[in-house]
Amino acid sequence: MARVVVDVMPKPEILDPQGQAVAGALPRLGFDGVTEVRQGKHFELEVDDSVDDDTLAKIAEGFLANPVIEDWTIRRVEQ
Amino acid sequence: MARVVVDVMPKPEILDPQGQAVAGALPRLGFDGVTEVRQGKHFELEVDDSVDDDTLAKIAEGFLANPVIEDWTIRRVEQ
Repeated sequence: MARVVVDVMPKPEILDPQGQAVAGALPRLGFDGVTEVRQGKHFELEVDDSVDDDTLAKIAEGFLANPVIEDWTIRRVEQ
Repeated sequence: MARVVVDVMPKPEILDPQGQAVAGALPRLGFDGVTEVRQGKHFELEVDDSVDDDTLAKIAEGFLANPVIEDWTIRRVEQ
């Protein structure tokens, strides 16, 4: 078994209203110094050792991210 | 300036219907070997050097995560 983390973020040129809402609220709430917030998705997968990196790439591109508007990273983490 | 990543995940005892939907769909789509999927949120913040770890902890706990149902991690990343 292995743990795999896939982080999915909106591409830089894509507006991110959720992140902008957080970034805009923080100064009003008394927290200065945060100049940008972007919000994406974080997936944690438990996979059998038989699942190779090519398969993980297909899963991430096909079902976890939308390649038109999102970038993603895949990494295996120690358990 | 520093980049800070905050990952927010549902606590282990909290149901995660989004993750379960992905995990349930993968075998039907021809991808075996993924035994669990959990979905959370991934935030990337750009912060001034004046923002210390205590402030980041308050921001994460108060505005990025719901402490009742979510766990979170905070880490500074190299740019």
